[in-house]
Amino acid sequence: MSNREDAAERLERQIAFLVELEKLKQVLRRTHPVGADRRENSAEHSWHVAMAAMVLAEYANEPVDVAHVVRMALVHDIIEIDAGDTFAYDPVGYLDKAAREHAAAERIFALLPPPHAAELRALWDEFEAGETAAARFANAMDRLLPVLQNYRNHGGTWVEANLDRDRVDARLGPIANGSTALWDYVCTVLDDAMAQGMIRVRE
Amino acid sequence: MSNREDAAERLERQIAFLVELEKLKQVLRRTHPVGADRRENSAEHSWHVAMAAMVLAEYANEPVDVAHVVRMALVHDIIEIDAGDTFAYDPVGYLDKAAREHAAAERIFALLPPPHAAELRALWDEFEAGETAAARFANAMDRLLPVLQNYRNHGGTWVEANLDRDRVDARLGPIANGSTALWDYVCTVLDDAMAQGMIRVRE
Repeated sequence: MSNREDAAERLERQIAFLVELEKLKQVLRRTHPVGADRRENSAEHSWHVAMAAMVLAEYANEPVDVAHVVRMALVHDIIEIDAGDTFAYDPVGYLDKAAREHAAAERIFALLPPPHAAELRALWDEFEAGETAAARFANAMDRLLPVLQNYRNHGGTWVEANLDRDRVDARLGPIANGSTALWDYVCTVLDDAMAQGMIRVRE
Repeated sequence: MSNREDAAERLERQIAFLVELEKLKQVLRRTHPVGADRRENSAEHSWHVAMAAMVLAEYANEPVDVAHVVRMALVHDIIEIDAGDTFAYDPVGYLDKAAREHAAAERIFALLPPPHAAELRALWDEFEAGETAAARFANAMDRLLPVLQNYRNHGGTWVEANLDRDRVDARLGPIANGSTALWDYVCTVLDDAMAQGMIRVRE
């Protein structure tokens, strides 16, 4: 192929990837946007996680490169185009979650030409591994937002799934790995949610 | 106030801003996500614009700081929480668009404590002014995505608003200010959209 054909094919692959991303707008989470009579999709959620990283980075346990956390937030759910959203409190869905998501990553990021395919895949791998300060903080943002939403939605998915505090704590505890300050804040919200009957007491 | 109370109030303002952002998930644009029987909201669109900036930055007319363009993309529509989305081909809506959006920016970004209030406001001001290479490229991404969507939605808003090529070109022409390469690509898509009857010929 000529350089011109190479360049045209490169751009077509980038455009095809951006069109593929449209599908993330159709992947529904359990959580509702505050006050909305519909479930949230993973694209708008990803935007919100990126915004949370921009606004709350000062609370990270270790200094983080905000731009890097933002990029990780933007790509962290793209694999759900194939793998679907797995409800945080669904033990059965979690059995094959890793395998489904790995297969999705293999297909979707490979739609892009180099170096973007490897770059975006590396952001997702880093998020999943959770071994860097940036990944732990991005993960904390991902878990924080449903707390804010459920609390303002009369308990939201906490009530829907009839959860007790132990299960909510087990899900949200990793927030402390990204930010102990925000985990302290979340605990005060959860205490109040329990007092209001949105989360059952431990059994 | 004590330092502790100051810190608590600071965090409450940041949380209140993030909760306010939930409203952008309820602001509807005219465009539909590809294949979807619903209108797109401005939060998921903002995510898509940020992703487009990450994937297509190499085509910017001048080298841009991708992280900066991404941040601009994430905040560029927040003012629509108050001002609403103004349809790109609505001349009446454009009469007071600037005034509505300025008032919205005054209120919404001020929900944040410093320095975030000023930082996010500056990103929006830069996007609106369109005087930097980063702003022109962010604007190009914002205008490019509806082209990809309408073309795959049997003409989408081009058909709905019964547009001719002159009006579409007038709206999309600024893409060339951000990227002549992507404007060339858009022109080939528009030529084909005309051939397929999605856009009327010039009158």
